[in-house]
Amino acid sequence: MRPKPRLATIEWIDGRVRLIDQTKLPHEFTHKETNDYRELAESIRRLEVRGAPAIGVAGAMGIALAALESDASDLPGLERDVREAAHHLGSTRPTAVNLAWAIERMLATLADPSPTDADRVRDRLVEEARAIFEEDRELSRRIGANGASLLSDGDGVLTHCNAGGLATAEYGTALAVIFAAVEEGKTIRVFADETRPLLQGARLTAWELRERGIDVTLICDSAAASAMARGWVDKVIVGADRIAGNGDVANKIGTYPLALAAREHGVPFYVAAPYSTLDPSLPNGAAIPIEERSPEEVTSLGGQRIAPSGVRAWNPAFDVTPAGLVAAIITDVGVFRAPYETSLFAKKTAPEA
Amino acid sequence: MRPKPRLATIEWIDGRVRLIDQTKLPHEFTHKETNDYRELAESIRRLEVRGAPAIGVAGAMGIALAALESDASDLPGLERDVREAAHHLGSTRPTAVNLAWAIERMLATLADPSPTDADRVRDRLVEEARAIFEEDRELSRRIGANGASLLSDGDGVLTHCNAGGLATAEYGTALAVIFAAVEEGKTIRVFADETRPLLQGARLTAWELRERGIDVTLICDSAAASAMARGWVDKVIVGADRIAGNGDVANKIGTYPLALAAREHGVPFYVAAPYSTLDPSLPNGAAIPIEERSPEEVTSLGGQRIAPSGVRAWNPAFDVTPAGLVAAIITDVGVFRAPYETSLFAKKTAPEA
Repeated sequence: MRPKPRLATIEWIDGRVRLIDQTKLPHEFTHKETNDYRELAESIRRLEVRGAPAIGVAGAMGIALAALESDASDLPGLERDVREAAHHLGSTRPTAVNLAWAIERMLATLADPSPTDADRVRDRLVEEARAIFEEDRELSRRIGANGASLLSDGDGVLTHCNAGGLATAEYGTALAVIFAAVEEGKTIRVFADETRPLLQGARLTAWELRERGIDVTLICDSAAASAMARGWVDKVIVGADRIAGNGDVANKIGTYPLALAAREHGVPFYVAAPYSTLDPSLPNGAAIPIEERSPEEVTSLGGQRIAPSGVRAWNPAFDVTPAGLVAAIITDVGVFRAPYETSLFAKKTAPEA
Repeated sequence: MRPKPRLATIEWIDGRVRLIDQTKLPHEFTHKETNDYRELAESIRRLEVRGAPAIGVAGAMGIALAALESDASDLPGLERDVREAAHHLGSTRPTAVNLAWAIERMLATLADPSPTDADRVRDRLVEEARAIFEEDRELSRRIGANGASLLSDGDGVLTHCNAGGLATAEYGTALAVIFAAVEEGKTIRVFADETRPLLQGARLTAWELRERGIDVTLICDSAAASAMARGWVDKVIVGADRIAGNGDVANKIGTYPLALAAREHGVPFYVAAPYSTLDPSLPNGAAIPIEERSPEEVTSLGGQRIAPSGVRAWNPAFDVTPAGLVAAIITDVGVFRAPYETSLFAKKTAPEA
């Protein structure tokens, strides 16, 4: 395996946020840099930075930018500006819980009652955003380490969308498991679903795997079941944008039919995500808000119209996979198995960590 | 409903074949016209004309062109030229049995033992090709009539790829059932899978339905299961490229996962096809040859590269749906239900015709 490139999906550099513009990959490797939280919010909305953990980090950095931007000299003024930014950033993408989670955590810092001045709070918010970033790097490594033993030498592993280094501060979630298995010396062949409409699998996952010298075959989403029927797929691993209290998983549109096909062919279906992706406030997947994006993502591609004018399209960005189809949830704190209602909340005895 | 346009997917006009170039739809409505069977074969290979019944008609017309092109003055010379053309035309697309069936039928005409001269045989081949064309028009109407009663007023019907007028001489197979139900006065809402990689659903099915004023919503293939989970889909109807003796169905890649999702949600999954799509020589779907097309259909779109260079792709054009997932097979001679091994071969008692 080639040396692992340091991707730096998103970085905090001296009061500015620098991110890889993922909408330009794989053709152009370019960055966006800003000190304006509104611009960062727009980058989140446009998927220039995407992937549940990465947009959590972006949300936290956005709050830090807002604190630096605010010219309030007193605490109430700063708090008002930061809460306004929190609302703006939080409304960009509804499904991934990590964004809400990171913003909440930043606001909790703000609410710290110890008497202090506005500049001290600004410093603290920047520190907290950097901490969330560093923790995300760490937990991707732990997800990889916790999941690697689930993959065997020679496995064919199918993944959907991009749950790699580009979806996190670095290293990934679903791909972290593959990377860790490969680092242990296992040979893994990956099937990457292209992932319509925005082709994150074709553009990002295939690119990350190729960069690391890992064997990858790109397929249309609708060919995954055929690959399983031919016996080429030993495991499926995907990421998650939100996990309900019962283990139902919201992830990129197309994950659910993949789980149905995996069950049909006796292929274990794994979900890899930070433990913070769990939203215990939701009893099941039906309660997860599903983002619907512009129909133009379906009717056009790269500015080129592919459907007749006047034709309506429905473009849900995510779907819900019932917990019953999930063989295990691989997190930074351990590997959880059904019944998820109980296992996910018994952190101290994480079964396979 | 608007008046039904006459699509004229493929036509025989004075010793020439004229077809709609479907690779240009929906942006350009243009025709190709040729008297050279090799050019017609290339049109089949490039999917300028596609859809199992339509390429059967094209294959027959190709044989007729070859007979007219041949300068043989004696029967053995003509037969040699025509058989060479049959081999050339028959090798363009391996999965659809209709092509092989139509070519076989043309060769049977050639083999007619009554003593005759080369020009009489030429006339006969042209007549036979026109007969196959006319029969295809007729049987599309019968498929529609036979299947219409399976759809109810207000149904949401999901279809995949294009099994409409553009896939046949006119009117269609799966879409014929929808058209016939609409002509009976039923209101049908259609969900059209875009059908990667070549987007026949987005480009052709959405276009045909819009032209007829039928309500259509375009979705990514991977969103079909979500539409079912929301209760929006009452029936699935697809076409078929080959049906094995046990009722296993080869159809456009993505049909099989659709059938799995339909079963999960209690949605009847119907296949509509000419009876000639049945290939009794094959015991089951595993014996159906599956065409694999160029990886570039997956890695590029409209000449624009969408995947990183050096990434391999697997591009099967079809998949196999096991008979057990098929609620009924709607044909021109009747509607068949499981057990297909017996029902499909008891033509005289076609159950719901």
